[in-house]
Amino acid sequence: MINIIRKKRDGGKLSRQDIERFVAGIVDGTIPDYQASALLMAIYFSGLDKEEAFLLTDAMKRSGDVADLSAINGIKVDKHSTGGVGDSTTMVVGPLCAANGVPVAKMSGRGLGFTGGTIDKLESIPGFKTTLSSEEFKNIVNTVGLSVIGQSEHIAAADKKLYALRDVTATIENIGLITSSIMSKKLASGSDAIVLDVKFGSGAFMKTKEDARELAEWMVEIGKMSGKKTAAFITDMTEPLGNNVGNTLEVIGAIEVLKGKGAERLRELSINLAGYMIFAGGKASDFEEGKAMAKKSIEDGSGLAKFREFVAAQGGNPEVTEDYSLFPQAKQNRELSIKKAGYVTSINAEEVGRAAQLAGAGRAKKEDSIDPAAGIVLHKKVGDYVESGEPLATIYADTDLQMSQALIAMMGAFNIEEAAPEETALVLDVIGE
Amino acid sequence: MINIIRKKRDGGKLSRQDIERFVAGIVDGTIPDYQASALLMAIYFSGLDKEEAFLLTDAMKRSGDVADLSAINGIKVDKHSTGGVGDSTTMVVGPLCAANGVPVAKMSGRGLGFTGGTIDKLESIPGFKTTLSSEEFKNIVNTVGLSVIGQSEHIAAADKKLYALRDVTATIENIGLITSSIMSKKLASGSDAIVLDVKFGSGAFMKTKEDARELAEWMVEIGKMSGKKTAAFITDMTEPLGNNVGNTLEVIGAIEVLKGKGAERLRELSINLAGYMIFAGGKASDFEEGKAMAKKSIEDGSGLAKFREFVAAQGGNPEVTEDYSLFPQAKQNRELSIKKAGYVTSINAEEVGRAAQLAGAGRAKKEDSIDPAAGIVLHKKVGDYVESGEPLATIYADTDLQMSQALIAMMGAFNIEEAAPEETALVLDVIGE
Repeated sequence: MINIIRKKRDGGKLSRQDIERFVAGIVDGTIPDYQASALLMAIYFSGLDKEEAFLLTDAMKRSGDVADLSAINGIKVDKHSTGGVGDSTTMVVGPLCAANGVPVAKMSGRGLGFTGGTIDKLESIPGFKTTLSSEEFKNIVNTVGLSVIGQSEHIAAADKKLYALRDVTATIENIGLITSSIMSKKLASGSDAIVLDVKFGSGAFMKTKEDARELAEWMVEIGKMSGKKTAAFITDMTEPLGNNVGNTLEVIGAIEVLKGKGAERLRELSINLAGYMIFAGGKASDFEEGKAMAKKSIEDGSGLAKFREFVAAQGGNPEVTEDYSLFPQAKQNRELSIKKAGYVTSINAEEVGRAAQLAGAGRAKKEDSIDPAAGIVLHKKVGDYVESGEPLATIYADTDLQMSQALIAMMGAFNIEEAAPEETALVLDVIGE
Repeated sequence: MINIIRKKRDGGKLSRQDIERFVAGIVDGTIPDYQASALLMAIYFSGLDKEEAFLLTDAMKRSGDVADLSAINGIKVDKHSTGGVGDSTTMVVGPLCAANGVPVAKMSGRGLGFTGGTIDKLESIPGFKTTLSSEEFKNIVNTVGLSVIGQSEHIAAADKKLYALRDVTATIENIGLITSSIMSKKLASGSDAIVLDVKFGSGAFMKTKEDARELAEWMVEIGKMSGKKTAAFITDMTEPLGNNVGNTLEVIGAIEVLKGKGAERLRELSINLAGYMIFAGGKASDFEEGKAMAKKSIEDGSGLAKFREFVAAQGGNPEVTEDYSLFPQAKQNRELSIKKAGYVTSINAEEVGRAAQLAGAGRAKKEDSIDPAAGIVLHKKVGDYVESGEPLATIYADTDLQMSQALIAMMGAFNIEEAAPEETALVLDVIGE
């Protein structure tokens, strides 16, 4: 192991054997943490090239459970987002794909951060089960076209250990390690094609367009080296994607989009992602046709119908789409307004996310429970004109403490100025077409 | 701690508080090894500046026992070598200083490597004790002028742990860390002035003149920042310093020099180091006068007399200087010769050292015992002319296996060519005068 550390420290290239030894030693404990962290820091400085990142991804993928989806008919397409605020695209995209004959067999994680993950959001639907047997899961995908379950605890076992170590040794920020961590889990999920949504901006892991583009290029390359059709969207996360940030609130936000209403940007990105997935799944001859098909499934209600079918198949009450009072309700809600008129020039996604978390929507630690009803609803988006004192957002929370903390966090989120802001593109680029 | 790692990773400068926290956490175990090794690797890449190295040295010095030599009269001068092959200068330099009224209170380590350390060498003298009470030690220095004892197990406790970690995480080779490791122990030894012998060449830790010079400059600077008079010699270790490599053999080599005979280079370096120590100890007005005094103590026998006095004071038999058969004897000895005539153009110090170790003179692991009598005696030095088949060296060992392994290792050590080599300087420079 010391020779492996020294090789990387001196700028050398790790061999397949080196990487296999490292990953095996991480899992079986024969490589002590102090040597692993020294190698991680050497990688931070010396970097990994794409071949090393591929070998690491592949070894980490094989270090845990690898799903076998061959019993599911058709080209299975998976979607992964690098994480943002108010992003409920999975709940829109899944039904739109399924409505067009592209099966989506999704394994999703729980979130640490501003809100729960997709699994947490879906669990706010009364009766909805996210733990299914492998049989039930495949069965629902084959009949309904869409199922979402919790990710196995045993997926990419090496990544789990390495990520925990990186987190406490300041070695998160390396493009090769980030790519390997994400892609090892995605590849272990067993789909035939992968569509990635790489976000940049205040609410995203990658703060700049350039960093997001680099990560997108790496992930697409590693995906292709792994024999999977892979594409990546680079999208703007400087303001929250939807109007709703929270668990229940985001399910409602997704239902609204499926009804042809709701947040414009959430709708736009969902049509893009679903369109690409329909194309990647072989049901459209190109991306443009895929988008048109996704759009049509919103207009004709087939997406919403598929959502209801999916909810019912996993034990949830499909009537929530028609009666939002069936969702858990927060004990308190309060409007935020400020005494200033003008155009909203920016809404800091990170601050809105933190406010949602403080309201109770997210976990700070793995053991924390989340409040399904807590969160933020934005009434104004970037570019909107507001009168002085007009409501900008509503905060939902249970306790006075949560409410006041969330309110303080929201105070600085809105920027209001005299001149209207320039419009910015939501989808910056698509890589790997 | 993660912020300290991140700061250094990003090229920042560690504060006194950061460094104190790190060293304290290493000693009390509140900083896990994996964070320590991540910081060490970040230091490997981002470096330490001299102020950080000083703060680290100082904190590590205070992490263990710090000797109080105030009960000893005069300016105490310590000598430290970065380690070489056939280097028995301590046993020559100590008596020469003591003979000129400069007290030497030396705490020395046991060696891992080619031969034992000075302590191991001295223990090959029948009856010699290296474990003395603090009282006995100070008493001998006050009466004889010289005592050498084993270094406390508790000196620079943080360095001991850190060095072990650096050894298995490929983070040895950083100038700031090397300097701090050496100087923390030297400064904890309590002398008033420090003379360093920084070696370069095949038999040394630093392989090039440039690296040796850099280390010398760092150590002198850190010594001065610590308020100690400090100087460093940069000396050649491309060939073994003395003719003898081993434990008993090196004691004999030192005695020979004190008798005005023995190896020319060992004699030259000893006079240089002792001369500087006599000057630093205030007994000579300049370095040149110090050297002349050291030389005179060889010629008039006062150095040898002091050596005998020192041996007797620590329980050893002083008669060894007149009768080498009183030393432990090896069971076998064998001459090495090769069928080639010409000038010795080089003798690889590292290969001679390894041969001595294989003969039984050194430890590979801390628990290993050493054979006091084993080792190598060189009959030819660089620049000598040899006839074909003339003896080049004699190997001393106990078992057939040790003898044959040492012989094989010695095979490639001598380079013999037609043309005589150019002479090279032994002392390249003195830094910090």
